[in-house]
Amino acid sequence: MKVSEYNNIKEKIFKIQKMELKVRKIKIMAAGNIVVLNSTFAFQNGIYADYRIKLENTKKKKELIAIVDLTNEMLKPGEIGLFENVAKALDVEDGQKIYAQLVLRPQTLSFIKEKIEGKTLTADKIDQIIKDAMQNKLSDAELASFMTACYINGMSDEEIIGLTNTIVESGQTLKLNKKPIVDKHSIGGVAGNRTTMIIVPIVAAAGCYIPKTSSRAITSAAGTADTMEVLANVSLEIEEIEKQVRSINGCIVWGGAINLAAADDKLIKIRNPLSLDPKGVLLASILAKKKAVGARYCIIDIPVGRGVKIEDASEAKQLAGDFINLGKKLGIEIEALITNGEDPIGNGIGPALECKDVLEVLEGKGPHDLREKALIMAGKLLELAQKAKKGEGFALAESILNSKKALKKFQQIVQWQGGKKNISSKDVPVAKYKHTIYSTKTGRVSHLDNKLLARVARAAGAPSDKEAGIYLYCEKGDMISKGQPIMDIYSNSETKLSVAIKVLEEYGPVELEKVLLDSIR
Amino acid sequence: MKVSEYNNIKEKIFKIQKMELKVRKIKIMAAGNIVVLNSTFAFQNGIYADYRIKLENTKKKKELIAIVDLTNEMLKPGEIGLFENVAKALDVEDGQKIYAQLVLRPQTLSFIKEKIEGKTLTADKIDQIIKDAMQNKLSDAELASFMTACYINGMSDEEIIGLTNTIVESGQTLKLNKKPIVDKHSIGGVAGNRTTMIIVPIVAAAGCYIPKTSSRAITSAAGTADTMEVLANVSLEIEEIEKQVRSINGCIVWGGAINLAAADDKLIKIRNPLSLDPKGVLLASILAKKKAVGARYCIIDIPVGRGVKIEDASEAKQLAGDFINLGKKLGIEIEALITNGEDPIGNGIGPALECKDVLEVLEGKGPHDLREKALIMAGKLLELAQKAKKGEGFALAESILNSKKALKKFQQIVQWQGGKKNISSKDVPVAKYKHTIYSTKTGRVSHLDNKLLARVARAAGAPSDKEAGIYLYCEKGDMISKGQPIMDIYSNSETKLSVAIKVLEEYGPVELEKVLLDSIR
Repeated sequence: MKVSEYNNIKEKIFKIQKMELKVRKIKIMAAGNIVVLNSTFAFQNGIYADYRIKLENTKKKKELIAIVDLTNEMLKPGEIGLFENVAKALDVEDGQKIYAQLVLRPQTLSFIKEKIEGKTLTADKIDQIIKDAMQNKLSDAELASFMTACYINGMSDEEIIGLTNTIVESGQTLKLNKKPIVDKHSIGGVAGNRTTMIIVPIVAAAGCYIPKTSSRAITSAAGTADTMEVLANVSLEIEEIEKQVRSINGCIVWGGAINLAAADDKLIKIRNPLSLDPKGVLLASILAKKKAVGARYCIIDIPVGRGVKIEDASEAKQLAGDFINLGKKLGIEIEALITNGEDPIGNGIGPALECKDVLEVLEGKGPHDLREKALIMAGKLLELAQKAKKGEGFALAESILNSKKALKKFQQIVQWQGGKKNISSKDVPVAKYKHTIYSTKTGRVSHLDNKLLARVARAAGAPSDKEAGIYLYCEKGDMISKGQPIMDIYSNSETKLSVAIKVLEEYGPVELEKVLLDSIR
Repeated sequence: MKVSEYNNIKEKIFKIQKMELKVRKIKIMAAGNIVVLNSTFAFQNGIYADYRIKLENTKKKKELIAIVDLTNEMLKPGEIGLFENVAKALDVEDGQKIYAQLVLRPQTLSFIKEKIEGKTLTADKIDQIIKDAMQNKLSDAELASFMTACYINGMSDEEIIGLTNTIVESGQTLKLNKKPIVDKHSIGGVAGNRTTMIIVPIVAAAGCYIPKTSSRAITSAAGTADTMEVLANVSLEIEEIEKQVRSINGCIVWGGAINLAAADDKLIKIRNPLSLDPKGVLLASILAKKKAVGARYCIIDIPVGRGVKIEDASEAKQLAGDFINLGKKLGIEIEALITNGEDPIGNGIGPALECKDVLEVLEGKGPHDLREKALIMAGKLLELAQKAKKGEGFALAESILNSKKALKKFQQIVQWQGGKKNISSKDVPVAKYKHTIYSTKTGRVSHLDNKLLARVARAAGAPSDKEAGIYLYCEKGDMISKGQPIMDIYSNSETKLSVAIKVLEEYGPVELEKVLLDSIR
């Protein structure tokens, strides 16, 4: 008997076994749609923990699917405990009767099983899996199985394109009716890598349209959204974004405030625990956000090196090829840039300190490495969007930066997003407490650890304390002398500052070149 | 930087960040160790939903690891909501202060990642994964990833042996100091397959020691434990089992009442949603229970056919080989029997009705197929345990059955387990309501569907209504005439009986041979 037939039979049997249950409200907001049943009663009805049941409030014509938890003490047989979020969604009162019905084993479980067995799924099956996930029909464990199978068995182009389109359809899309619409993305992992806030005003000033959505920090000290928020509002409605970009060619907003790729949040939550990033899912997740804003040209920054996401150059090249190939099939022209991610970009680490770097670069000063990287990327994007001839993008980007057109465009963007008029690097707020770290040795800097520096900055309060973080006085390759200042740590809390100092002293994220590498006897 | 170093650093950082929280009790028993935090507060401290935190009640020197859920409304920053089971385990009062600390990303996550990457794990790493799972240090999603990886990448003998030993060590073990200790196991899926209750008294009467632990029904109409419970108590303490088997050579008890292979329940819960039975885990789970009772000789019944777990003969042979090979390494001599699982064994389906079949066989009557299968298996076990020469086991088993020694042994076991003296098939209770089903056609029976018959019996009330179920009047190959009775359905509830009839009529679990298989034009 085929699964579909068996499901069909089970459906009919379960239809007969619809249950009437008495509501007992539980005054807690749960994270998901969770309900509680008396365990003896549940077992007698063939219901176990983690089973899904469909609840119906026929009076108000509301229904939803919930996951079952069991209790021995709290509820009597025939009662159902509803957490506040569930009770509200069903619009029920305490003591009221509602109908419950076992939900069929979703058909998508058999698709997940197929993927586990090594089969390639159609775009349609991928679509159904993600839709079921969004409706809570699949548990975290089932989705983890799916992700694991995608990781081990890999994903075909069709699967990735299918997933991309599903993610796009799961949320809203931007409709600008302008061209060229361009975008950029960085794979991340490099502290202080705030090129976006320089690239956006350059390409916008050159006549491109760039509706840039950025993320907040997850494990780093600052995301672009956190950094931009030092100066302006980043939580815009989708209509506001459309209006702004149509009028002034660019924006820098927080992607989390709009519903661009709703399914992506769910996918990120699943990938999180094991840092399981199946390449196909990573690609789909990034490409979906580009497609959702209508981008036609896009550059992708893939930092490579010790301590960042991708440590190996050949892996980076492979990923670059995937982006370009899939981009073609989705109608996005992509150029992938493999960049040096060995040590931080710029001097600041933390929202306000990184913001200061950005404004200084736009004003014609600022850290050289940040300026250089932003100009290279902006130049490539201008070439891609045919605003500059091949090989002339960098020069065009540099002239826009030098002429202060990029600064003016950035000031305009900040003002549109509710920030101060004519913003300058002097307006960036500074934390109350500062502690300077001096080198205890003389030598050449061989490594600045992105992850550990982020940890120190976070211990100091970043990113929730926007003014907290690190300001570096050295970069890889510099000769430093004993007693020379190597960084300042900033914080608005004396306690946090001292914790950050302890963290720093214990792990020394700044490494000097060693003469004697090992001694064997 | 290696994971271990990084964990080390994180540990030190987190140690600094110990939090004091105020307890708010929530009057609900949760299924696991779940606590609730204010979400804004949690984010500021780098804690997200599903993170694990260690809680400490220093006053009472209690601690445990819990999984974090988040709320926006119920709790203030700095408060922690404890479900009743957690509050009890920590022995805390409402309003009291406790310490919370982020639990490190368990090192076992990197072992799971290794398994996902296709590496083979050492027995020690497998052991640590299962121990972390038992202590709630790994989430269901993480364990689902592990199971999926074991399924896709397979498991080495060392991994399976390691897992078996871990499962054995997770629970109690039986110490009988007798020999030979024998056991049997069936892979399951065949309705009415109650051979255990015949094999145990035969081999016990022949001088073997058989401490048989059985399971209850999960999706079937009756497990051996449910069936035995019709006549006797099956929830025995481990000391009672030891005493009984030492005295009268055998018992038939419910494995769930003792703590033989504690880790197994956790593993079953994880395998459940996707019916993901990685062969290595299945083997370890079965072998661990045999090792935990000290079995030296064991037969394994592997039913094959349409509608049972293993549909393919070559898969069954492969599995048989694995059992024998692994058994050798664990010191258990195993014989695997591949049996015909196409249709039900015996006439009864449901605890009491299956019990009746068993007693009738022991009394010298009863269904031929049940008698035959039990004698074959008992015979093989007697040969394996050197109670009979090769080829003479069946005859010995038959003589023990025919002489009523097996019946007397069974009566002795029932009486030891608190049942009636001199139990007979006439003592088996019968349900109040009965409905006879007549054939609507004439023809030869080509298939009796195990799964669908189980569904009908469950609709009638089995296994919680012990007297409910089906009594079959036909088996595969029989010629039946229109109007001839083919089965009785029993139930103690008129409503359930009518539901069962509806289920039966709609899905026809009894198929007749078709002359015309298809018509094409």
